Amino acid sequence: MSKFVDLNSDVGESFGSYKLGLDQEVLKHVSSVNIACGWHAGDPLIMDDTVRMAAANGLGIGAHPGYPDLMGFGRRNMDITPKEARVYMLYQLGALHAFVQASGAKLQHVKLHGAFYNTTSVKPDLAEEVINGILEFDKNVILLALSGSYIAKRALEKGLRVAQEVFADRAYNSDGTLVSRKLPGSVIHDKNEAIERVKKMVLAGKVTAIDGKEISIAADSICVHGDNPEAVNFVNTIRKSLEAEGVELKPLNQFIR
Amino acid sequence: MSKFVDLNSDVGESFGSYKLGLDQEVLKHVSSVNIACGWHAGDPLIMDDTVRMAAANGLGIGAHPGYPDLMGFGRRNMDITPKEARVYMLYQLGALHAFVQASGAKLQHVKLHGAFYNTTSVKPDLAEEVINGILEFDKNVILLALSGSYIAKRALEKGLRVAQEVFADRAYNSDGTLVSRKLPGSVIHDKNEAIERVKKMVLAGKVTAIDGKEISIAADSICVHGDNPEAVNFVNTIRKSLEAEGVELKPLNQFIR
Amino acid sequence: MSKFVDLNSDVGESFGSYKLGLDQEVLKHVSSVNIACGWHAGDPLIMDDTVRMAAANGLGIGAHPGYPDLMGFGRRNMDITPKEARVYMLYQLGALHAFVQASGAKLQHVKLHGAFYNTTSVKPDLAEEVINGILEFDKNVILLALSGSYIAKRALEKGLRVAQEVFADRAYNSDGTLVSRKLPGSVIHDKNEAIERVKKMVLAGKVTAIDGKEISIAADSICVHGDNPEAVNFVNTIRKSLEAEGVELKPLNQFIR
Amino acid sequence: MSKFVDLNSDVGESFGSYKLGLDQEVLKHVSSVNIACGWHAGDPLIMDDTVRMAAANGLGIGAHPGYPDLMGFGRRNMDITPKEARVYMLYQLGALHAFVQASGAKLQHVKLHGAFYNTTSVKPDLAEEVINGILEFDKNVILLALSGSYIAKRALEKGLRVAQEVFADRAYNSDGTLVSRKLPGSVIHDKNEAIERVKKMVLAGKVTAIDGKEISIAADSICVHGDNPEAVNFVNTIRKSLEAEGVELKPLNQFIR
Repeated sequence: MSKFVDLNSDVGESFGSYKLGLDQEVLKHVSSVNIACGWHAGDPLIMDDTVRMAAANGLGIGAHPGYPDLMGFGRRNMDITPKEARVYMLYQLGALHAFVQASGAKLQHVKLHGAFYNTTSVKPDLAEEVINGILEFDKNVILLALSGSYIAKRALEKGLRVAQEVFADRAYNSDGTLVSRKLPGSVIHDKNEAIERVKKMVLAGKVTAIDGKEISIAADSICVHGDNPEAVNFVNTIRKSLEAEGVELKPLNQFIR
Repeated sequence: MSKFVDLNSDVGESFGSYKLGLDQEVLKHVSSVNIACGWHAGDPLIMDDTVRMAAANGLGIGAHPGYPDLMGFGRRNMDITPKEARVYMLYQLGALHAFVQASGAKLQHVKLHGAFYNTTSVKPDLAEEVINGILEFDKNVILLALSGSYIAKRALEKGLRVAQEVFADRAYNSDGTLVSRKLPGSVIHDKNEAIERVKKMVLAGKVTAIDGKEISIAADSICVHGDNPEAVNFVNTIRKSLEAEGVELKPLNQFIR
Repeated sequence: MSKFVDLNSDVGESFGSYKLGLDQEVLKHVSSVNIACGWHAGDPLIMDDTVRMAAANGLGIGAHPGYPDLMGFGRRNMDITPKEARVYMLYQLGALHAFVQASGAKLQHVKLHGAFYNTTSVKPDLAEEVINGILEFDKNVILLALSGSYIAKRALEKGLRVAQEVFADRAYNSDGTLVSRKLPGSVIHDKNEAIERVKKMVLAGKVTAIDGKEISIAADSICVHGDNPEAVNFVNTIRKSLEAEGVELKPLNQFIR
Repeated sequence: MSKFVDLNSDVGESFGSYKLGLDQEVLKHVSSVNIACGWHAGDPLIMDDTVRMAAANGLGIGAHPGYPDLMGFGRRNMDITPKEARVYMLYQLGALHAFVQASGAKLQHVKLHGAFYNTTSVKPDLAEEVINGILEFDKNVILLALSGSYIAKRALEKGLRVAQEVFADRAYNSDGTLVSRKLPGSVIHDKNEAIERVKKMVLAGKVTAIDGKEISIAADSICVHGDNPEAVNFVNTIRKSLEAEGVELKPLNQFIR
């Protein structure tokens, strides 16, 4: 049986005169993209261009909603209410979807950004309304969520399709959560080690936690970055390393049920 | 043959802790509403509530996109490019549409707000891309535009359905344009006179211009306001005066082809 | 010996076309005002008008900085860094100060708004940098802070003048902190009870905590509200009740050392 | 008699996670800087860092206020009122000044940004209130304005100190205005030609207009750019070319009366 996996990257994070990320480069190497929706990053011109580039490359297109905090790039937690979480999803899903529709493509998935992603992964009341927002918008949109997280499980229960996301360069606790960036060892800096970990997650569904335990992990999609040339090269290396193992890269909509 | 006309009002113009307009009251008297999309006014919580109220009242729901200028309430002209005009339409149409979709209703129309409305009524390059934005989003959305304006004519040529909007309380030049608010006599303050003018526009398709000439004017929809109790009462008076003449109030989608 | 106290109210919280608060009314009854600085509320036109009105009334003028969250009115906590806390103080103090300078008045104090107030009252790292921001801006500006709070104590240690603020309508825990608004009994709805509490805080320096214990509390300034006519009347009642007890109302700069 | 001139550059135009301009490099070559104030660009962290860097380099520090349009980088005209022009000056001057004060430096000048600069150079009603805003803030702040412009003349009449700004890379009309960027020949692309023009403006007070006429032009300060390494090199070349002619570079406050 052939194996497959998705590679996803955040793109469309420029704003006005400000350029961020090597989108044109990273688009060549990934199978899905998460496109900022104008709140923590992105603006309508950028969204239009990015969606069209992604569509032209045949990639799976996702919305990447974040907190309304451009100054903090959506990385600072904000104490929003569950109702706000639901309507912030609707607003940003709708805004991005307009460009997807205009490009003739389909919206494949949604992945939350930054602090919105982290907080809703673990807070049941926020997770519930994030999921409700997606369901109200379109039941067929896939939720790309932290592998094994509360929100991933709950979204499955509520009837959404869910893609489990793993990180090439992050350490895991033995309960499957990510080691906080504030702790030593949270980030895997050795590229070779990162690639070995990715291969094991994809091929064996296993990862070695920071305490040395071997744990199970579902890996539908690997999060990669396109911030600089080195990062883009690393994406290419991951891709080739996986292909060398017979793993095929596919957008989520081709294999998530 | 029975006559009909639409009454439209701008609603959903509150923002965060700030309340603006007697939306619940004015919704009882109009047939269509233009809902702010979060740029010049409105936020996701307000949009969600307003769309649901409008849907519950069986009203024609429209998007009301404006310039990205909350501080100026979208009333100050901004020198945006035609391309920006197109993508600003897409962004705001999409954002509002998400709430319409979530409410189970349909998006009936789009009406531009404030300076965006005024400028695109007369500037061909901006009008062209505003229309393209609507066409890219959904060919079935009606454009509610200044009666007889450049954008109204051009949108018809390009295949959009167009509703011609008239104003109860504004004076017209003999070329069909509105008299600038900066000039004396631009606003009709006498309620009875305003109602007589509305009746003549709807029943006879005529209006007396500021220079005394009788001109033809198409009146598919009358713009009314819900800012204060007096304004709401006036909407009710317009409605009853028209009904007394046998005119039926209907949302645009029931008669615009 | 004559007693005196300051009455303070948040004003200048309108924004663009949005009006909030009966500023003109409440200005007649208070001795100091906290003026929003354009982040959680307020804009330059509002700031200019409000500062001039306050100066014309001879009131103590304070800056009222908040989080950069107009949509949430600065009431939602944001996980900002201590460094951000410092520069957010500088930015907003400077912006408000320009209008104070233009009006020919002096900046008397600064009071933080909403979630910025609450969080920095208790978090030492944020409190430290808030105080540093004020010290860098102007050592003579008084900090109006929650009576007995961490930040009030620390600011005194660091050489700032501090005014201790109490609330007429809020219950206190026996450690001097405010009872969370999420708990029953946190707000005193009975006006007479509120006034008796104010008098006791001002005259005796005591308040009955929610658990029945009598605790000491310093009361340099009483926070009052001008949101609606009833609130304004209540401010007037507090003022008169205090004056009937021989308490004089004075702006902070007339008695805080 | 020794000649001197100021070289000025816009800096502090980054925002949040977005970096713009080689500020650290360009600071080595100029004598004055214009620092964005958080509206069209800049944020409090950036302002704090930039002001401290400029102060450490002994440069003349200026505020660089713009329109409230981050998405358009302040380059799109907005139809603001004269009153808005005045208070927008106060707000941004005050905000930037707080950081200058915190750094122990002095605010030397103010230069308007982008569309705010262009529009107020020629519109008397806006120019009047821009000047009033500066006068209300601090009569000693120098206005750095387009050489020979309406606002430059009017500010002198009203008692402000004014520095006349010229552009190394822009063509002039024979009435002293800049040739519109929309017209061919508006930008001088040949570096050598640009340097010859700068030398003539500084040394002889003359420039050849686009129609071939030799016109008089006052040159107190030359606007240069630090967007990329090539631009920074060009600044260095201008500096050295002027120094080779015996011209000394000085901040404005050392020679504008």
